[in-house]
Amino acid sequence: MKPATAQKRIEGVLSPVITPFKRDLSPDPDRFVKHCRWLMKSGCAGLAVFGTNSEANSMAVDEKLELLEALIKSGVPAASLMPGTGHCALTDSVKMTREAVRMGCGGVLMLPPFYYKGVSDEGLFRNFSEVIERVGDERLRLYLYHIPPVSNVAITLELIDKLLTRYPGIVAGAKDSSGDWNNTKAMLDRFKDRGFDVFPGSEMFLLDGLRAGGKGCITATGNVNPGPISEVYKNWRGPNADQLQTGINTTRKIMQKVPMIPALKAVTAHFSNDPAWKTVRPPLVELTADQEKLVITELKSAGFSMPEL
Amino acid sequence: MKPATAQKRIEGVLSPVITPFKRDLSPDPDRFVKHCRWLMKSGCAGLAVFGTNSEANSMAVDEKLELLEALIKSGVPAASLMPGTGHCALTDSVKMTREAVRMGCGGVLMLPPFYYKGVSDEGLFRNFSEVIERVGDERLRLYLYHIPPVSNVAITLELIDKLLTRYPGIVAGAKDSSGDWNNTKAMLDRFKDRGFDVFPGSEMFLLDGLRAGGKGCITATGNVNPGPISEVYKNWRGPNADQLQTGINTTRKIMQKVPMIPALKAVTAHFSNDPAWKTVRPPLVELTADQEKLVITELKSAGFSMPEL
Repeated sequence: MKPATAQKRIEGVLSPVITPFKRDLSPDPDRFVKHCRWLMKSGCAGLAVFGTNSEANSMAVDEKLELLEALIKSGVPAASLMPGTGHCALTDSVKMTREAVRMGCGGVLMLPPFYYKGVSDEGLFRNFSEVIERVGDERLRLYLYHIPPVSNVAITLELIDKLLTRYPGIVAGAKDSSGDWNNTKAMLDRFKDRGFDVFPGSEMFLLDGLRAGGKGCITATGNVNPGPISEVYKNWRGPNADQLQTGINTTRKIMQKVPMIPALKAVTAHFSNDPAWKTVRPPLVELTADQEKLVITELKSAGFSMPEL
Repeated sequence: MKPATAQKRIEGVLSPVITPFKRDLSPDPDRFVKHCRWLMKSGCAGLAVFGTNSEANSMAVDEKLELLEALIKSGVPAASLMPGTGHCALTDSVKMTREAVRMGCGGVLMLPPFYYKGVSDEGLFRNFSEVIERVGDERLRLYLYHIPPVSNVAITLELIDKLLTRYPGIVAGAKDSSGDWNNTKAMLDRFKDRGFDVFPGSEMFLLDGLRAGGKGCITATGNVNPGPISEVYKNWRGPNADQLQTGINTTRKIMQKVPMIPALKAVTAHFSNDPAWKTVRPPLVELTADQEKLVITELKSAGFSMPEL
């Protein structure tokens, strides 16, 4: 493989884009593109399409590739996209990563294979290494996706060290969705000066992360609250940064009172006046009427909106 | 959907067939077919290809379908096959299940979607229901795969009840790999008289399971010890059943001293004199030399063999 060339990295607030489904549960490219364009106009630096909040693991590789093609064709810059490309099956991860690089995506956000539990760092190293070698493209920017509460398979600091040593420039960073600030801080302290960009997985850690050398955040609520979250990023060195952070925390805490993924969809449905957004794929279920009422009422009381742009 | 017609169900010992990989980690259909034929000649009633022990979740749908086609083309009766067809992605599960039914497989063994954790029975019901409705074929025999230590998503008794009530005849049974005899017993007590066939996920529970109304077992070590395990099944009402059970327990306990999947491959490699069998796909790794020596030495001391037939 040729050495990686210099290339502008994605920095700022990324939204792990929720995926709209039609009544027959097939992905809806039109609503998807519309939402993505709104997110970019609202201040997102990039889109981590096909993440956990996207119900990406409930979709087949080809379904995701069709959405990705539609998105890029619509004019959203590929360089601002960081699609999720990690699957349980090595060959699926290779296919999806190869296509993402071919389409010019700024990066890929890669889950470890997550079916087998208690696997070794050596086994996980081999997985990522096989993907990198098979894709064999110096344009690849691989971000490791650490989300042990869901994947139940961790990306340890030792694994990062080994991958970064072997593939500098290609291994470009991580999303830390552990929810554990101590882990994010340890990741930053150890790797931030080695070309490794750390994105906390919640805006609750956005300001703390930036102050410790982080590059932004990749956050669920970026789907509904992209403007205010992006304001924290833009003003993090300013005098009102803490006040802005407190504001976005309030919204986040309301969202966290109910299951996050159907909540993102219910809120999008309500504030964009488009009930079709509520549809989720099994094994998820939509919010109950009570849950929906709770979150909408509290958001309204807090002055929340999703302004058309 | 038309009602299910009467059809002989698979009963006895099934092997969750290990998958051979070539040096480039692609599946090896020739070795796969050869091993499957040996298993059937050795006493297996059926083959649960593409299970946990098959590293099935490390393979793409199309890779599995190619192996399945090669196997059926080789003359192994499709009616004796119970391929794993459950994926995280609804559309993958539908595709794989549809193809398995089209090829005449006796059943399918279906994992729940296993990425999202803490999902509701309602969400899981919708997943299985969508697959059944979309496949829409009265020949489908769906066996639920309960393996919480790996999937981290359980098939509860309440979920079984709901599915069995809605799809009698189609929902045909379960493999219980909880390792918890109390759960297997509860499953048997509640559903064995409702056309629901329970297979413990280890031969350690074979005799107890049969005595409580079970239909056999689907067990990892069925890959290397199919003859003696099948003897327990054939003689379970006989005077020497307990003695036969004690014998297969000894082999199982030796295997359990090291990681099971690479152990099955190392043992197959050694006793069939074919080192290529040792290859595993990431995130798994092969046994260390010490682990391999331990398990081979102890098996030899116990008089273990894999006789050519």
